Amino acid sequence: MTVKAYAVHQAKGAFEPFEFELGEIGANEVDISVESCGICHSDLSMVDDEWGMTAFPLVPGHEVIGTVSAIGEHVSHVKVGDRVGLGWHAGYCMVCDQCMGGDHNLCVDAQPTIAGRHGGFAETVRAAAPSVIKIPDGLDAHETGPLLCGGIAVFNPMVQVGLTPTDSVGVIGIGGLGHMGLKFANAWGCHVTAFTSESKRQEALDMGAHETINSRDPEAIKAAAGRFDLVLSTVNVPLDWNAILATLKPRGRLQMPGAVTDSLGINLLPDMMFKQLSVGAMPVGAPVVIRRMLDFAARHEIAPVNEHFPMSKVNDAFEHLRGGNARYRIVLHRD
Amino acid sequence: MTVKAYAVHQAKGAFEPFEFELGEIGANEVDISVESCGICHSDLSMVDDEWGMTAFPLVPGHEVIGTVSAIGEHVSHVKVGDRVGLGWHAGYCMVCDQCMGGDHNLCVDAQPTIAGRHGGFAETVRAAAPSVIKIPDGLDAHETGPLLCGGIAVFNPMVQVGLTPTDSVGVIGIGGLGHMGLKFANAWGCHVTAFTSESKRQEALDMGAHETINSRDPEAIKAAAGRFDLVLSTVNVPLDWNAILATLKPRGRLQMPGAVTDSLGINLLPDMMFKQLSVGAMPVGAPVVIRRMLDFAARHEIAPVNEHFPMSKVNDAFEHLRGGNARYRIVLHRD
Repeated sequence: MTVKAYAVHQAKGAFEPFEFELGEIGANEVDISVESCGICHSDLSMVDDEWGMTAFPLVPGHEVIGTVSAIGEHVSHVKVGDRVGLGWHAGYCMVCDQCMGGDHNLCVDAQPTIAGRHGGFAETVRAAAPSVIKIPDGLDAHETGPLLCGGIAVFNPMVQVGLTPTDSVGVIGIGGLGHMGLKFANAWGCHVTAFTSESKRQEALDMGAHETINSRDPEAIKAAAGRFDLVLSTVNVPLDWNAILATLKPRGRLQMPGAVTDSLGINLLPDMMFKQLSVGAMPVGAPVVIRRMLDFAARHEIAPVNEHFPMSKVNDAFEHLRGGNARYRIVLHRD
Repeated sequence: MTVKAYAVHQAKGAFEPFEFELGEIGANEVDISVESCGICHSDLSMVDDEWGMTAFPLVPGHEVIGTVSAIGEHVSHVKVGDRVGLGWHAGYCMVCDQCMGGDHNLCVDAQPTIAGRHGGFAETVRAAAPSVIKIPDGLDAHETGPLLCGGIAVFNPMVQVGLTPTDSVGVIGIGGLGHMGLKFANAWGCHVTAFTSESKRQEALDMGAHETINSRDPEAIKAAAGRFDLVLSTVNVPLDWNAILATLKPRGRLQMPGAVTDSLGINLLPDMMFKQLSVGAMPVGAPVVIRRMLDFAARHEIAPVNEHFPMSKVNDAFEHLRGGNARYRIVLHRD
């Protein structure tokens, strides 16, 4: 089968129409006829080969929504015609302790959808069946793609740390990840505070924050000492992490879905030790948690705030993203 | 009541006999006639005024074992003659969320036994009743003192992270804290690995380690990648924390009862994020966890390895500790 797609052929290159061949479908594989695909910041990182792991030509796209066009003979949880989604991972080893324990996202042999295979900026994406998630009827498929990577990146920490509705949550950075963090934490029943610029204050309140803290004002952060059970930091730039730790309550947790590459420089004393704090991070989420997230999103009518581009305008969409202008996610749709 | 004690009168000073007056006992207070008292490294820090919080004259000692000599009118959980212990805290506010939630050790108004009051290098110590712990019959009181601060510092993280007997535990630093970590983790049913010098290898095995890793050999640490569910770091010097994080399994936790004062310099990528790790610390433990620890120690016949000095030789004992010669804890006994 010949698949039409959009690919970049070199680091930081422009997208060009690209065709590739898909061989016969494997017994445990699913082909998805793509309807739409979100653009995640990690697509940009892969296009730019920031992590030195990109194979060119690269077909990005790992927030895929589509319908099943073919299934292998052993596939039982989806059938042709089902509306499904595919996120950062397109396959898992299925036999390691992590896979067997429900932590497929921690499988060391998990296969990224856009490394070693072609992603969702295409007519068709092929993936191993366990990574293909049925989309619940109640969700607007047109808007759902970004939940599959950006959404789960903020939802999974809430699940993993055992967040409860009586907790107070701070979300740092109201962008592609953070705005979904506000919506999820609000629907979770928590008190929600956005750390953001004054310019985004009203939007943050509209998206579920009960209040905001000016993230550029050290005095405002200082005044928030001891306020949060969970802080989700979605930024990828270094902050004064010790000042952020001070905003946590006793037993508070700092979770960092934003992939900060600078060393954290965290002090054990006084806050970490005397308040029994912890700092952690995790990669996206396992399929079972993605399913739970989609059910939760359907029940609470949660969708990311998306801008829409036709897939043929992928270069315009990337320019928009590169310029820092996305409000808040971008979804490409098949022309 | 006049109490005979040993006090230092200036930072890094020598101990001298010292007398002080105790007024009438409060309704919620307990007087303990001291039998013995462990010396903790934090006593040395307070003697040296390392933390700038020492009030002189200082009577150190917060690993107290003794018998109840008097109780206030509202005290009901101990009676005169009971054998009891007292650790780092001698009082809590009892009304904050942390106290009401069982986390008295996280109370911001918790009163250290040796700051703002006199500690256990004395005939009598007075403490608020909730901080006074009954010693179970099965424990050898002569050896139990060091459990009350050093012991709980390594036991509490095991409780708080939800350690299970199927877990693999690494203990870094086999000293005053670490040797108790080996014993507790072994009795907990875990696989136990000591990170220690070759010179302490056999002792570590004798105290409950199933194997050892040479903590001074970066290659040995590298070879231990992905091995531990929990690493307890009991050292107070900076290590290559990213190398230590690499020794954790997915979902692994680094807990740091050793009070490292240098910034940790932890990297989020790759291990923290891709393996869903967390880093944390906590101060000693709440009374209810100390009680559980003592019951556990009695049932499993766990005692610290102590050297014994008469209290009148407190200066010799401190010299021994200062020289790094304690193997592994020191207990002072009333002459």
